[in-house]
Amino acid sequence: MRSIVSFYLLSVWLSFLCVIFVWLWSGTWRGGFAWDGSFLQFNWHPVLMVTSLVVLYGNAIVLYRVPLTWSRWRCKLSHAGLLSVAVVLSVLGVCAAFDFHRGNNIPHLYSLHSWIGISTVVLFTLQWFGGLCAFLLPWTPLAFRVFLKPLHVWMGTAIFILSLIASLSGISEKLLLTLNGRNGSNTEPYTALPAEALFANSLGILVVIFGLVVLRILSNHKWKNPQFENESDRPLLTDAR
Amino acid sequence: MRSIVSFYLLSVWLSFLCVIFVWLWSGTWRGGFAWDGSFLQFNWHPVLMVTSLVVLYGNAIVLYRVPLTWSRWRCKLSHAGLLSVAVVLSVLGVCAAFDFHRGNNIPHLYSLHSWIGISTVVLFTLQWFGGLCAFLLPWTPLAFRVFLKPLHVWMGTAIFILSLIASLSGISEKLLLTLNGRNGSNTEPYTALPAEALFANSLGILVVIFGLVVLRILSNHKWKNPQFENESDRPLLTDAR
Repeated sequence: MRSIVSFYLLSVWLSFLCVIFVWLWSGTWRGGFAWDGSFLQFNWHPVLMVTSLVVLYGNAIVLYRVPLTWSRWRCKLSHAGLLSVAVVLSVLGVCAAFDFHRGNNIPHLYSLHSWIGISTVVLFTLQWFGGLCAFLLPWTPLAFRVFLKPLHVWMGTAIFILSLIASLSGISEKLLLTLNGRNGSNTEPYTALPAEALFANSLGILVVIFGLVVLRILSNHKWKNPQFENESDRPLLTDAR
Repeated sequence: MRSIVSFYLLSVWLSFLCVIFVWLWSGTWRGGFAWDGSFLQFNWHPVLMVTSLVVLYGNAIVLYRVPLTWSRWRCKLSHAGLLSVAVVLSVLGVCAAFDFHRGNNIPHLYSLHSWIGISTVVLFTLQWFGGLCAFLLPWTPLAFRVFLKPLHVWMGTAIFILSLIASLSGISEKLLLTLNGRNGSNTEPYTALPAEALFANSLGILVVIFGLVVLRILSNHKWKNPQFENESDRPLLTDAR
């Protein structure tokens, strides 16, 4: 029990660090934020994607393992709530990148990061919508929910791993494009490892460590809460509160 | 049973595709291979890393799930054998990149890809050495092997995820540096999505799909071979053949 609490506290601490680091990178080194099609609009992209598809998502999927004394109903609503915020923020994050491309005549979806990233957002949104219909709405048959649950759990983990891959390739792409003289930067090149590169590389490492801590929490079946294991015969919205 | 066979055949098919794609990318679009400190030496880097840390590694870790009629002894030796080849190839792959850097006055280990990549290779080598000492050599106490096994399995999966992240950020970095006019390339820019970019992006997607198929096979506990679940009271090298 002490072990899961340590891992959970570590994941919460890493969550804050990831958000602070990505916010400082965009807000300080990259010049701040705007919503005007400029570089400043693009700066929302890493902040929104890391916050939604890594931090909120990671926290939403460990909710079923952490030793909270919450009811199943409360746990499910918190899981769905965090993921709903994550869907909205991730769509805004994609819009920030697309608006920046439009404003600067850069084609959409040419890079490997963009291919992985857009697939992740689409799969994440479908997974969220499927989960909402199957596990929150009262008219879904129990048999269908029981059938869907293992797939929902597996897809949830797979999409989280895709999010980690998309984040790391994205941070890497941004550093290569910005510090190597494109996108209006006049800093030292990436190869000289200026302070910004050191900072953003550290953000990447923090994201990876956070991801592995979340996956470690998920992997330990002893930490599963037995009362959440089986779908009840009552749809969630009529569950006892 | 039919399901695990389908997943296994898919993983084998994707293994070949990954190796063929990375070989064609380096061998055809990037000009072939040499071991002389030039760009041609660097071309070994993606081929050796994808082959070792993704394909051989992935195949070595699914060996305990696939419905082979092999003995535990044979399965362990094949697992160790594939991973030993992977260690050698991955070290050669790192040497190829370092020699290229030295020959072209490029600093080592400045990029996020290099930080993730070198961490992955170091962890992989430690995991291989630890596994070799604990599970293959005859003098390791049974109690220690029993204690180490869950950690070995978890670390194995975590390092495989790190390999996927390192590969994707590496393919992405190579495309951004090469197609955007550095490293002596005179092709169309990455933003125009020339044939090479389309091909290498597809390699990245294949690596991700292969990785997810391997993780899918690992995640299904019904596919575990019960005879491999418990460490026997005999060290492996004295197991019945």
